[in-house]
Amino acid sequence: MHLIAYLKTGPTALHVGSWRHPEATLDDIFEPSRYEDIARLLEAARFDGCFYADLLGLYDTHGGSFATYVQGAGQISFLDPMTVLPLMARVTRHLGLGVTLSTTLIPAYYLARMLASLDRLSGGRVAWNMLTSSTDLEAQNFGLDNIPPRELRYDHADEVVEACCALWDGWQADAFVLDKAKGIFADPSKVKYQNYSGRWVKTRGPLSIPRSPQDRPILMQAGASERGRQFAARWAELVFTMQYRKSDLLTFTKDIKRRVAERGRDPADCRILAATSVVIGETESIARERAAYIDALPDPEMHLASSSSSLSVDLSKVVLDEKVVDASQGNQGVQGTRDRIDRIKEAEGMTFAQVVKRNTQSPPIVGTPAMIADRMQDFFESGACDGFVITPNVFPQMYEQFCRAVVPELQRRGVFRREYAGTTLRENLRNP
Amino acid sequence: MHLIAYLKTGPTALHVGSWRHPEATLDDIFEPSRYEDIARLLEAARFDGCFYADLLGLYDTHGGSFATYVQGAGQISFLDPMTVLPLMARVTRHLGLGVTLSTTLIPAYYLARMLASLDRLSGGRVAWNMLTSSTDLEAQNFGLDNIPPRELRYDHADEVVEACCALWDGWQADAFVLDKAKGIFADPSKVKYQNYSGRWVKTRGPLSIPRSPQDRPILMQAGASERGRQFAARWAELVFTMQYRKSDLLTFTKDIKRRVAERGRDPADCRILAATSVVIGETESIARERAAYIDALPDPEMHLASSSSSLSVDLSKVVLDEKVVDASQGNQGVQGTRDRIDRIKEAEGMTFAQVVKRNTQSPPIVGTPAMIADRMQDFFESGACDGFVITPNVFPQMYEQFCRAVVPELQRRGVFRREYAGTTLRENLRNP
Repeated sequence: MHLIAYLKTGPTALHVGSWRHPEATLDDIFEPSRYEDIARLLEAARFDGCFYADLLGLYDTHGGSFATYVQGAGQISFLDPMTVLPLMARVTRHLGLGVTLSTTLIPAYYLARMLASLDRLSGGRVAWNMLTSSTDLEAQNFGLDNIPPRELRYDHADEVVEACCALWDGWQADAFVLDKAKGIFADPSKVKYQNYSGRWVKTRGPLSIPRSPQDRPILMQAGASERGRQFAARWAELVFTMQYRKSDLLTFTKDIKRRVAERGRDPADCRILAATSVVIGETESIARERAAYIDALPDPEMHLASSSSSLSVDLSKVVLDEKVVDASQGNQGVQGTRDRIDRIKEAEGMTFAQVVKRNTQSPPIVGTPAMIADRMQDFFESGACDGFVITPNVFPQMYEQFCRAVVPELQRRGVFRREYAGTTLRENLRNP
Repeated sequence: MHLIAYLKTGPTALHVGSWRHPEATLDDIFEPSRYEDIARLLEAARFDGCFYADLLGLYDTHGGSFATYVQGAGQISFLDPMTVLPLMARVTRHLGLGVTLSTTLIPAYYLARMLASLDRLSGGRVAWNMLTSSTDLEAQNFGLDNIPPRELRYDHADEVVEACCALWDGWQADAFVLDKAKGIFADPSKVKYQNYSGRWVKTRGPLSIPRSPQDRPILMQAGASERGRQFAARWAELVFTMQYRKSDLLTFTKDIKRRVAERGRDPADCRILAATSVVIGETESIARERAAYIDALPDPEMHLASSSSSLSVDLSKVVLDEKVVDASQGNQGVQGTRDRIDRIKEAEGMTFAQVVKRNTQSPPIVGTPAMIADRMQDFFESGACDGFVITPNVFPQMYEQFCRAVVPELQRRGVFRREYAGTTLRENLRNP
């Protein structure tokens, strides 16, 4: 089983009210220690890695303003994840370090360079969550009027990733000579130009950053649309998905593994991780009461604002019925959220209006450490997923509880590693 | 007097052969400790800060190939400075942290976001060396055929800096409320859109990164052309220049200070630092012998390749006479290098061919610690500069010697601080 921690450089990740919990820490958001401590904790528990979700702006879909998000601390990156990941690399030796970087808005050469540098500095532990970006607000921060349509974004992303892979292949591993006497620092015959030329992306290369110990960063992806799945099948070594029920997850995982195989890749080389939150208690009743407490923390308007962001529709200004979903069936919004809302309606017998006013994430696993381990083991052993992206509610409390109580239970059962197999992220993803 | 250390994420900075010195360290180029150690050393000596020079590619002007640079370890950034600066911020509390980032090749919103994040994380210690980038090789890495002409680059850079300054002004310092009970994380009325719209640069804002303790990064600049000086006069709080003789430096400093005053700014708010290297010996004769030793380290072809890069002319393929300089008088190349070559010819009675085959940097100050302090004190007290950018030859040995022997001498004379005046870089630059 593989475990990745979902992180955000803010007080809150997917659970938008958890910063109000008495144990949530807020004063240290700009302190390096916040990021170092979580990295050490996750490594001590043998997590494969962590990754930072990100947005190049402040969500203001809801009510045409960022007010709800700023006041309620909706998902906001208060720091650029690329400035905290080096700190996390520094205090760990095995933990994978994932970052979300937009293929649409950041130049390919710069993406390849930043990622190669962090990969090299961390000894080969970087994962790149290849996001095409789906909001006009981000496009407008970068001088575009609108974000390009989804198909175009993914066609462009294919070129960006092709270009990055070419650039990461520019230096042979043994290029450095370091011969002071002869004056040969490195062997130029082991460095090559790439001259990548696509329809949109051109780059000559080479990078000035030599090869990483894991050759190139792990490619990670979360898009759930038809085009997103094609992209995952071609590139992704790690897919992160949020599905409402186990049956939805099984269907998704089968679909991606089939697509990966059809592209001639080994399905085992594409790990599917299910986004899951947990609420842990000494007893089931404590856990249930805690879950209800945590669930009540977000302001209701914050839930609706989150749904507005996910659907790219301002839900404050429309009648909350199915037509909204139709209206969002264009190029934008996150297909995964739309699908999940349908599943929640089916499973819970709720209306669209009811669903978008609550948390539309997959429900947390609530219970004792053993109950949580049971559920995770069942998902894993039935092939519904290769592991989990653990999404936090109360930070860092939830991770502390999970690492101290659930991980040892998974280890006792022999479904999760006690020691890392290697030092690079790719080694650890291939050898759980 | 202000002191800034010139750094490069490679074995060599401006002195292209110094990596061959017996004491030069090479094995730790990818180790965090290399960057942490130099940061601690510079802070203990009360340097104002350091900055990383950078290039978004590998120089291949000379002979149409990067071979000379790769083999001879010419100025190469083997890591992205943005991935090592957070590590340096972590182990220091006062040291300024400068980074070179291209206004031409990196999107304005992304520049503002990265710099704001590092500035916030470091407690307000970032400087941005605003480089417009002058090489076609960098342009071609970013999908352009050629780098735009200088005037256009600077006109564009003006917009980039305007946009960044607007974005950095988006969050008021007291926006965070952190009231868990009321559910108010931050006050949205203290965050504003920028809606910056220039001829080339558009960005809506706001950043998701709250205000830095120093409000915005220190703006730093090194361009010496007429247009570069106009740009410096408008924006720069710190100008880094390399002049051959004291008289050249006096002329330059007077010119910039006059331009700054003409723009209605206080000339004291634009510090002019002279790039200087040192060779230190227990006696003058030891220092002279060491200088000759260090001078002989670079391969002669490496000097010529450096000159090719600086002039943007392939000197391996032309007759080395004045026509070359004429040929380079277009938009590209570094005006400062061309001017300096003229000064060297005048001062040393050399031909163009002789000059470009040797080190075209300003000559090091060679001598005992007291002799070096004499020279620095004289430059400073005569108004030739507000301080120095110390460019290393042997790394880290030269900085170690300088910090242990020259800095205490400057402190004894009362021309350099014994304690930092403040915690932000701007405080320390304004209160030496």
